[in-house]
Amino acid sequence: MTAQSDYAALVQQGLSLDLTRGKPSPRQLDLSDALFRLPTSYRAADGTDGRNYGNLQGLAELRELFAPLIQVPAGQIVVGGNASLALMHDTIVHALLTPMPGAARRWVEEPEITFLCPVPGYDRHFTICERFGIKMVPVPMNADGPDMDVVERLVAEDASVKGIWCVPKYSNPSGIVYSDETVRRLAAMPAAAPDFRIFWDNAYAVHHLTDTPAELADLLALSAAQGDADRVFVYASTSKVTLAGSGVSFFGSSPANVEWFLRNTAKQSIGPDKINQLRHVEFLRDGAGVAAHMRRHAELIGPKFELVDKVLTEQLGGLATWTSPKGGYFISLDVPHAAEVVAKAKAAGIALTPAGATHPYGDDPADRTIRIAPTYPELAELEQAINGLAVCVRLVAEEHA
Amino acid sequence: MTAQSDYAALVQQGLSLDLTRGKPSPRQLDLSDALFRLPTSYRAADGTDGRNYGNLQGLAELRELFAPLIQVPAGQIVVGGNASLALMHDTIVHALLTPMPGAARRWVEEPEITFLCPVPGYDRHFTICERFGIKMVPVPMNADGPDMDVVERLVAEDASVKGIWCVPKYSNPSGIVYSDETVRRLAAMPAAAPDFRIFWDNAYAVHHLTDTPAELADLLALSAAQGDADRVFVYASTSKVTLAGSGVSFFGSSPANVEWFLRNTAKQSIGPDKINQLRHVEFLRDGAGVAAHMRRHAELIGPKFELVDKVLTEQLGGLATWTSPKGGYFISLDVPHAAEVVAKAKAAGIALTPAGATHPYGDDPADRTIRIAPTYPELAELEQAINGLAVCVRLVAEEHA
Repeated sequence: MTAQSDYAALVQQGLSLDLTRGKPSPRQLDLSDALFRLPTSYRAADGTDGRNYGNLQGLAELRELFAPLIQVPAGQIVVGGNASLALMHDTIVHALLTPMPGAARRWVEEPEITFLCPVPGYDRHFTICERFGIKMVPVPMNADGPDMDVVERLVAEDASVKGIWCVPKYSNPSGIVYSDETVRRLAAMPAAAPDFRIFWDNAYAVHHLTDTPAELADLLALSAAQGDADRVFVYASTSKVTLAGSGVSFFGSSPANVEWFLRNTAKQSIGPDKINQLRHVEFLRDGAGVAAHMRRHAELIGPKFELVDKVLTEQLGGLATWTSPKGGYFISLDVPHAAEVVAKAKAAGIALTPAGATHPYGDDPADRTIRIAPTYPELAELEQAINGLAVCVRLVAEEHA
Repeated sequence: MTAQSDYAALVQQGLSLDLTRGKPSPRQLDLSDALFRLPTSYRAADGTDGRNYGNLQGLAELRELFAPLIQVPAGQIVVGGNASLALMHDTIVHALLTPMPGAARRWVEEPEITFLCPVPGYDRHFTICERFGIKMVPVPMNADGPDMDVVERLVAEDASVKGIWCVPKYSNPSGIVYSDETVRRLAAMPAAAPDFRIFWDNAYAVHHLTDTPAELADLLALSAAQGDADRVFVYASTSKVTLAGSGVSFFGSSPANVEWFLRNTAKQSIGPDKINQLRHVEFLRDGAGVAAHMRRHAELIGPKFELVDKVLTEQLGGLATWTSPKGGYFISLDVPHAAEVVAKAKAAGIALTPAGATHPYGDDPADRTIRIAPTYPELAELEQAINGLAVCVRLVAEEHA
C-alpha cells in the first residue's frame, strides 16, 4: 500500500488524539491518591502551625527531603507554589526590576539582554524571554548537552549574554543528559557579564525510566568550587512526581542569590502554602519514598516510551531519527519537513506540539524537530497516534521524493 | 498610683505578647478543620480532572461562589494562589513590563509614577510601591473613606498618578467602610492618566463582626456605568476565611483588564492549584455557607474587639481616641507620641506594629497612629497586652505633661 492510501484510511478513522503536552496520565495521578487525606497534622517539624501565615522560605523538613535530590543544600532552597515555571519567570522579573548580586544595574536598564537557548528546548522557557524582549540565540544540542565550544565562546565574548536555559537531565524534548564534562565546563567557563546566570531547570531530576538512573554532576557545587556559585539558579518541582497542578516547586542557589530572591519575594507574599508542603512531606517521607514512587510512575510510562520506539522502528527505519530517553517526558523525532508532517497529522485528528515550538521564536531552521509526549494517552491510543504519525511522515517523504 | 509605678510593675511582669500582625487565632483556624479531608472528588463541575495542568482562570464553580461576595461577575474573576498580595504585586509587575489597556507605554518607561495612599493604611501595599520606586502621596482618611476632594484634585491634575490603594470595607487599620458617595465619586472622577487604576483590596468583604453587615457600593459596576470599568482592579482572598497560609485568592476587573492579566499570567504559570479550589468549593458550598462560617469567626473574635474597646475606655478615656470597627481585623488607636508609646511597650514585652507602619515610608507625620491586631491572642493575654499598652500611653502622656 502507498503512504497516500494509508493516509486516506487514517483520515477515514476520524481520530481525536493529543500528543501535545507532557501531562501525566490519570493512572499516574492516581498514584498520589493518599494526598487527599493528608496531612494528618498541621504542625511543622519546628512546632509552628502550618495553617497560619509565614515561613517565606518553606518548611525545613521539605527542603531537607529534596536537598540531595536536586543537589542544593537545604538552607539554600526556597519552596514555591505549584509551578517551578513561576519561579523561573519571577526570577527574571526580579532581575529586570532589582539588581542581582554582581549586576551593575537592573536588567530593564540594559540596552540588550541575550539568553542562550540549547535547541531543541522547552517552549515555555522561550515564551518567558519573548515576553520581556530578551534576545534568544540558539545553540546546537549534542548527545552530551549543548555544544560547549559555542557556549563558552558566546558567554566569554558577549557581555549581553546574561543567561542560558538548561534542562540538564532527560532534557525536554530530547531526553539527553548533560555529561560530567559539560557540567564542569559550564561551571568553569569565564563569563563577560558579571551577572551571567545558568537557569538549571532540573525538571526531571528523579524521573527515571530504567533501573540505572542517570547521574548528573553537581553544577552548584562545581561553580562554588570555582568561586562563582552565584551563576547557578536551580529549579525543580513535584508537578510530575505527585499532582501536575497541585505540587510544590523549588528554587535553589548560592546564599547571596537566595537572600536576593527572598528579599524580593517578601514584597510579593507573606508565605507559601505550608499545608501542601506538609502533605508532600508526609506522603513522600524521604529519598527512598520518592524513588519508590517514581518507580511506580516508570512502570506506567516506561511501556509507552518502548511502544513509541517500537512503532517508529517498524514504520520509519531509515526515514527518520529519534531519541530513546532513559527518563523524562519526551521523545524528539527528527524528520524532513516537520511542519508539513504536523499539519498532516492535525488534519487526521492527531494533535502534536506545533513544529518549531522546540526552537526560539518558533523557528526551527532545519524544519526537523517534532516533540512527542507519550505519557498521557493509554497504550492503545498511543499506538494509534504513533502509527498515524508514521503514516504522515511517510506521506510527506513520498510527496517530496 | 502614678503611670511610672504602673509601668515599673508592668516591666516586672516580664510579658511576651504580640499584637503586631492580623493573624487568625488557632481556634479560628480550627473552624476549617474539614478542609484536611477534602476534596472528596478531584472532578471539576465541567468534568475535567482537577489534578492535572491547566485552567489558568480557575474553576468556574469557585468563581461563581465568590462573584456576589466580591461584586465581580464570575467571568471576570481570576483565581490565584494562597495570597492576594501576590496578585497585587504581580499586577504592578505586569503594568511595569507590559502596557495595560489604555496605557501609552510600560510603567517602567514612565518618568514618574505616583500612587495615592489613604492613611492610615496597609503597610504591605506601601512596601510594594517602595520596591518599585513608585512615589506615594498620603491622603487623609475620613469616617467615610479617603478625603475625596483631595483624591479628585490629584487624580484630575497629575498624570503621574496611576493608582490609589483602597481597603474599602473594614479598612486596615481603621475599620471604616467607604460610603456610597465615596465609591460613586471614585467611579466618576476624571483621571489625567488614561491608565489610572483603583487597587480595590476588598480583603474583609465578608468579615463582619455584627449581625448588620456593612454594605459596600459596587465600584466595578459604577465605573462600568461611567464607561471606565478598566479603572478597577478588585482583590480578595480566603486567607482570613479558611486558612491564612492555604487559602485561595481572587483578581477581578473589566474584560479587557482580565484578558491583559491572563495573557501575562500565561507566561508565568500553566495553571493554579485546582485541588485547593475544589477543597474550598466543597467546604464553603455557597454564599450562605460562607456567611455561616464567618459568623463562627465573629463569635470568636467579636469579644476580643469588645475587650479592647472596654479596656481602652476604662484606662484611656480622654487621653486617646480609637476606632470601634464593625468588621475586619484591626483597631486604630490614636495617641500623642505614638513612637514613644510603642517603644515603651516593646521594652515591657508587648510587641506592636512599628509606629509609622500605617503610613508611606513609615512616616506618620503626626506620630499618632498605632495599629492594634486583637485577633491572635486569647482573651486573657489580650487583656494583659491592652492594659499594658494603656499604661505606656499614660506614662508617655505624663512624661510630656
